[in-house]
Amino acid sequence: MNKDLKVFENLESEVRSYCRSFPTVFTKAKGSIMWDKEGKEYIDFFCGAGALNYGHNDPNMKQKLVDYIMSDGITHSLDKATTPKQEFLTTFNDVILKPRDLDYKVMFPGPTGTNTVESALKLARKVTGRTEVITFTNGFHGMTIGSLSVTGNAFKRKGAGIPLHNAVTMPYDRYMDDTTDSLDYLEHYLEDGGSGVEVPAAVILETVQGEGGLNWASNKWLKRLEELCNRFDILLIIDDVQAGVGRTGTFFSFEPAGIKPDIVCMSKSIGGYGSPFAITLIKPEYDIWAPGEHNGTFRGNNHAFVTATEALKYWDDPAFEKAIHEKIEKVTSYLNRIVKDYPELDGYVKGRGLMQGISCGVEGIAEDVAAEAFKRGLIMETAGADDEVFKLFPAINMDNETLERGFDVIEESVKAAVAKNEPVTN
Amino acid sequence: MNKDLKVFENLESEVRSYCRSFPTVFTKAKGSIMWDKEGKEYIDFFCGAGALNYGHNDPNMKQKLVDYIMSDGITHSLDKATTPKQEFLTTFNDVILKPRDLDYKVMFPGPTGTNTVESALKLARKVTGRTEVITFTNGFHGMTIGSLSVTGNAFKRKGAGIPLHNAVTMPYDRYMDDTTDSLDYLEHYLEDGGSGVEVPAAVILETVQGEGGLNWASNKWLKRLEELCNRFDILLIIDDVQAGVGRTGTFFSFEPAGIKPDIVCMSKSIGGYGSPFAITLIKPEYDIWAPGEHNGTFRGNNHAFVTATEALKYWDDPAFEKAIHEKIEKVTSYLNRIVKDYPELDGYVKGRGLMQGISCGVEGIAEDVAAEAFKRGLIMETAGADDEVFKLFPAINMDNETLERGFDVIEESVKAAVAKNEPVTN
Amino acid sequence: MNKDLKVFENLESEVRSYCRSFPTVFTKAKGSIMWDKEGKEYIDFFCGAGALNYGHNDPNMKQKLVDYIMSDGITHSLDKATTPKQEFLTTFNDVILKPRDLDYKVMFPGPTGTNTVESALKLARKVTGRTEVITFTNGFHGMTIGSLSVTGNAFKRKGAGIPLHNAVTMPYDRYMDDTTDSLDYLEHYLEDGGSGVEVPAAVILETVQGEGGLNWASNKWLKRLEELCNRFDILLIIDDVQAGVGRTGTFFSFEPAGIKPDIVCMSKSIGGYGSPFAITLIKPEYDIWAPGEHNGTFRGNNHAFVTATEALKYWDDPAFEKAIHEKIEKVTSYLNRIVKDYPELDGYVKGRGLMQGISCGVEGIAEDVAAEAFKRGLIMETAGADDEVFKLFPAINMDNETLERGFDVIEESVKAAVAKNEPVTN
Amino acid sequence: MNKDLKVFENLESEVRSYCRSFPTVFTKAKGSIMWDKEGKEYIDFFCGAGALNYGHNDPNMKQKLVDYIMSDGITHSLDKATTPKQEFLTTFNDVILKPRDLDYKVMFPGPTGTNTVESALKLARKVTGRTEVITFTNGFHGMTIGSLSVTGNAFKRKGAGIPLHNAVTMPYDRYMDDTTDSLDYLEHYLEDGGSGVEVPAAVILETVQGEGGLNWASNKWLKRLEELCNRFDILLIIDDVQAGVGRTGTFFSFEPAGIKPDIVCMSKSIGGYGSPFAITLIKPEYDIWAPGEHNGTFRGNNHAFVTATEALKYWDDPAFEKAIHEKIEKVTSYLNRIVKDYPELDGYVKGRGLMQGISCGVEGIAEDVAAEAFKRGLIMETAGADDEVFKLFPAINMDNETLERGFDVIEESVKAAVAKNEPVTN
Repeated sequence: MNKDLKVFENLESEVRSYCRSFPTVFTKAKGSIMWDKEGKEYIDFFCGAGALNYGHNDPNMKQKLVDYIMSDGITHSLDKATTPKQEFLTTFNDVILKPRDLDYKVMFPGPTGTNTVESALKLARKVTGRTEVITFTNGFHGMTIGSLSVTGNAFKRKGAGIPLHNAVTMPYDRYMDDTTDSLDYLEHYLEDGGSGVEVPAAVILETVQGEGGLNWASNKWLKRLEELCNRFDILLIIDDVQAGVGRTGTFFSFEPAGIKPDIVCMSKSIGGYGSPFAITLIKPEYDIWAPGEHNGTFRGNNHAFVTATEALKYWDDPAFEKAIHEKIEKVTSYLNRIVKDYPELDGYVKGRGLMQGISCGVEGIAEDVAAEAFKRGLIMETAGADDEVFKLFPAINMDNETLERGFDVIEESVKAAVAKNEPVTN
Repeated sequence: MNKDLKVFENLESEVRSYCRSFPTVFTKAKGSIMWDKEGKEYIDFFCGAGALNYGHNDPNMKQKLVDYIMSDGITHSLDKATTPKQEFLTTFNDVILKPRDLDYKVMFPGPTGTNTVESALKLARKVTGRTEVITFTNGFHGMTIGSLSVTGNAFKRKGAGIPLHNAVTMPYDRYMDDTTDSLDYLEHYLEDGGSGVEVPAAVILETVQGEGGLNWASNKWLKRLEELCNRFDILLIIDDVQAGVGRTGTFFSFEPAGIKPDIVCMSKSIGGYGSPFAITLIKPEYDIWAPGEHNGTFRGNNHAFVTATEALKYWDDPAFEKAIHEKIEKVTSYLNRIVKDYPELDGYVKGRGLMQGISCGVEGIAEDVAAEAFKRGLIMETAGADDEVFKLFPAINMDNETLERGFDVIEESVKAAVAKNEPVTN
Repeated sequence: MNKDLKVFENLESEVRSYCRSFPTVFTKAKGSIMWDKEGKEYIDFFCGAGALNYGHNDPNMKQKLVDYIMSDGITHSLDKATTPKQEFLTTFNDVILKPRDLDYKVMFPGPTGTNTVESALKLARKVTGRTEVITFTNGFHGMTIGSLSVTGNAFKRKGAGIPLHNAVTMPYDRYMDDTTDSLDYLEHYLEDGGSGVEVPAAVILETVQGEGGLNWASNKWLKRLEELCNRFDILLIIDDVQAGVGRTGTFFSFEPAGIKPDIVCMSKSIGGYGSPFAITLIKPEYDIWAPGEHNGTFRGNNHAFVTATEALKYWDDPAFEKAIHEKIEKVTSYLNRIVKDYPELDGYVKGRGLMQGISCGVEGIAEDVAAEAFKRGLIMETAGADDEVFKLFPAINMDNETLERGFDVIEESVKAAVAKNEPVTN
Repeated sequence: MNKDLKVFENLESEVRSYCRSFPTVFTKAKGSIMWDKEGKEYIDFFCGAGALNYGHNDPNMKQKLVDYIMSDGITHSLDKATTPKQEFLTTFNDVILKPRDLDYKVMFPGPTGTNTVESALKLARKVTGRTEVITFTNGFHGMTIGSLSVTGNAFKRKGAGIPLHNAVTMPYDRYMDDTTDSLDYLEHYLEDGGSGVEVPAAVILETVQGEGGLNWASNKWLKRLEELCNRFDILLIIDDVQAGVGRTGTFFSFEPAGIKPDIVCMSKSIGGYGSPFAITLIKPEYDIWAPGEHNGTFRGNNHAFVTATEALKYWDDPAFEKAIHEKIEKVTSYLNRIVKDYPELDGYVKGRGLMQGISCGVEGIAEDVAAEAFKRGLIMETAGADDEVFKLFPAINMDNETLERGFDVIEESVKAAVAKNEPVTN
């Protein structure tokens, strides 16, 4: 191991994880390219697990941020009023909410995904006076106890060290098979006073499960879920932390379904530049918080307000969204071709938007593809309970040349992985 | 209300709180001075509730941060290895841990106080295989369900919307009175197999309770608590999120007590510049995490690594700590004089280091002092269950001239509050 | 209201329930006949909700009990050794366990159904070191917090006044429809590390759900469930409190399925005479209790030992079981005919053995049938979430003449209920 | 081991406990004398842990019971109205409640102590809409999950196999020392909004802790507790399962304190003859149960109604209570003399009424005394976390001759235990 990595081994906790899959020391980044200490270049098909949808160090945001810092703008403000926060609120309302005919109050719950989820769960319980929450198989919502209670992964859950309560896991869209509508099941449980599952405060879900293996819910299923929630007076919470901010082609991932969630959780790319930031969107009629009932020291990260506001400006131009959709089509075609051309993967395409990947039927091969890609200068992650999926998470504004270059590297990596997995014959 | 504040009322959630006590829109800040949109100047005796111990926009950190951003340094890295992280780890070890003869592995649990607390509780449960945690009256540890379970405040707890479990609240130092050693109580419960309180995974506490009303634990009490933990094989967790990073005069608040906690939680000022950042320090023998068993999208906030590393350099010079101690003495003398000169407050001095204040026996008067101070251009908070304490949280590097100026404003505010509270006679 | 009933209204808690459906004061009973204070006679098709499978005041048991009392035999013994307990243990082993090739240790957990269930859950958690338990929709297991946690009924659960934890409700046999094998669902959850449902300590279920509406599990389903439990190392607990002791035709209700549960819960009719009594049967390898780890003041009810032992003697003669099966056939034929002859009920036959009834599609009509039957001198209960089932629970040794007489009364009651529900036409 | 005991070893669960301390097979009993299979006689100073306060097989009750059985009286009735229940309700009201100026509705929650406790906790939560319950150190309330949550003993609690929730353990009277009023703690916690202990639904306690080591609460302490409950609108639940029915000299143990609990739990000796029986007494204004919201198969044990009614008649004659008080004085004098005469025990007298014993400072000696007593034909139990107390639980109607005979046997046993524990010198 090189000397630099030794520092992490000696001083950092065993909990560290990505530095094991990507064993090098990174120094700088621009757009979709990262460089390590040795000057080696990497194409980024990972995007900080969805926190860097606009790529690294976007020049517009960078300029605004540096100007702000140079002017001694307020950095940290808790929930005091500041100019950047005012601008963010106004821009978010004008550029995002109004054009989509959405009416939400914005809460700043603390700057991480798990914070917005915890705030949403608290509020839903307060609004309804109920305690239980329905979540879905393979959902991922965060690592603090409240969010972990509604997260499916057994390894993560076990980390709690205590039994997790107040949540019931229902089957996600197509959980059993492609023909059963899994909401029949939820509906039956809700209708039946003997089912052991009480009417919950809320249901919480991602429209595409980024950590859970790229499962995604159809528009029809989401629409029916919204109707069920209305019928039983249950709050619908969409956790758009990973699938939001253009990752699936639209700003909110749920736009194509035509639903209007009661609460929306956002983080990761909402800050634009990769700085910690999160917001919770609340239908005005449910904004019944007492002042300070939920709080957090870093809920006023003004650097993030500045870059977030700048990032939103992209969405003012309809061409931006159109370009994402074109990229999505490229990725979809590419992945379908790979599945067809490399039957040795025993794969099929999963996911939606720029959250797609190939689920491989051969044990270990998806991890091999990602490892080979890293060797060849491309960063890509695996997902799923057995790491059976390799995921393409390019920046939503990646230029076509880099995208194609990435495609080539991945195909080379697939070839290498397939070769490695070939039975030796002679 | 002015037009600017209207934006917050219209678009931000009801949960907002400090913008109600300090109703103006802030724009910039430098050292211990803040300015609002009208150009009015405020002396900051609040320091972002302990997140701005070095004041606002420290010029050294600012320069490093801007240089880093301009060089397109990595912004967001999850737990991949990066140069700024490497430098932070090395500097923290060299400047802070080694000279204090402390040996800890550093965990990056996500960038907020509640994240470090949740990670500490999880780890203590994993290490011991036990579920319960002992916390103390008036402790404050965060707003996500795990941290909230070990937090005392009834209003905050109620916000959970569910019963909170796996925690037992024991009396903090001098909770009952000044002569009873409240650890007798804890010891009795632990020794007695019929007490209903099982031997816990951990005890968690702050050495000074910033949110809970400036109660503080004596060195002797802390030492005895450490011995009790050793005797019953309980992990000792110090939550130094607010009292750490020089707030009480030493880098760690527990240094004068001569204890070595098993886990230390840090956030707020550890990032130096007010950016979201947190670390969990773990004795190497307890660092038994599996990779990724706890994680978080923003655990690699490189902007904070850069400023945090720069901030640590202050501690290389012994004069820095000495200067804090001198400031502490000034504050102590000043507060004692105020108590003596204004018997109408019916007050006494509470707290330790630069976390001191006056607890007032007259209902509402502490809030009046803070409100009068705001009018006169000074930001100061109240604390305690009935907001009966007004708190002085100056920057640890505030210059003496500003400190004295602040003292004057506060004294004027006390006078005004006292006058307002005087019974009308004729 | 008559004077006698006034006493109950004045002095007994509002929680009283059956005295509202059967508003009279009962005085004596013999076999399947009960008498009230006015001397009115009632045929008992209720059997104390399954606690009086041998009818009332069986003459053999009565004689043994009176002889025992007259001889000043020990009445109450906690778990001290006594002669009647010795005889019960020996007889139970010789007459019940050995002939069925079953090997269980017998635990006396306290004399009620909920006691045996609570003891079973505790033991399963101790054996496996896991906390969660899988239960099934519409299961009923008791009213103390541990048992209530694994009970489906929403009204009963709400009575807890606290959220109920550590249980997951899976769909019972044919819960969704007649073609889906609901164990596919359980299996999928257990196999999937992201399902949010961890491998539990145990599954607990009734083979026929007496309180939950006479749903019953097929032999094939039970066998597959046993295999799933074996595969995932989960303890299989059969709650035979209501369906056991001959109620379904065999001593244990699970005999026809050919399964061997790890733990069996018995109460109700196991005492024979209607005295409080319960036992928990435990496979020897799981009998790892520490002495006194579970206990209860009335776990040594010697009057019940005496009558229980006498009752077991019935099972020594194969003719006894054969006669029950003949009675079951009569009931089945009868109910099928009623369904056919009274299409106005919109009914179908539910249940198994002497736990059968008719589920009616017309709202309120099942309750009308039961009320009409009471008027005509027959005691019968309704079941199901909307009381849509009327249940026939005759004694397993009811003579044919009484059975036929009961059939006639019920048919008259059906006629009256149908007439009452007929739409008025003219 | 003799052949008879072998049966229990082979067929009964390892959980059995008293048969290990008293290794013989009992056959019959009368008053305060028990006989085993070999005809050996034992004086009973144990009384079924308080379930046999009137001794064994009281002739009056026996006669009534046999007459009732011979007349084919209803045995099992759930909560249908029956003649014996009517008589019990009327007699309990006339003989017990009215003369004591108490007004309670009577609930039949199922026939065991843990059933009445679980029903009380449920109701208190329903009445107040709160979830938490305050219990006291070394309290014992039962073995089902709800009752176990409010029980102090660590060994019993661990048996649950899950963390126990919704309870906070406060210090019982004189828990810390003889001078601190432990209610100062409770009051401070309740008054302080930052204490981490919310205002509970109820407090539950025993006035004398039979299982917890014969600690007892003073009248003054109980009175102050009642006042605290009133002030904070908390329900006061007295668990009189063991200390009630004359065990401390009065029918209810709390009579001398002059308090009127909101709910009273009774079981053990309330049935008179040792048959399973329990009642929950509820102030009329809190009797807000829905019908059937709590239930249990054996809540209508008519044999126990018959003997319970007969037993109550004793209380009609003031001489009965007077005789108990005389017996109490004898026991107190005797125990004080033993402590004085046998300084080798290093003992002191604990408890109240006919729940007294000697707490011994020499490890193991209390168990030796009990073992020696068994050899000499006297049944007596130890208590306390380390079994450091030997307890005298004579029948409340034990004749003086038997009492004196018992005293002699115990003194002999003390002598033998002291001799055994003497250091060998030569």
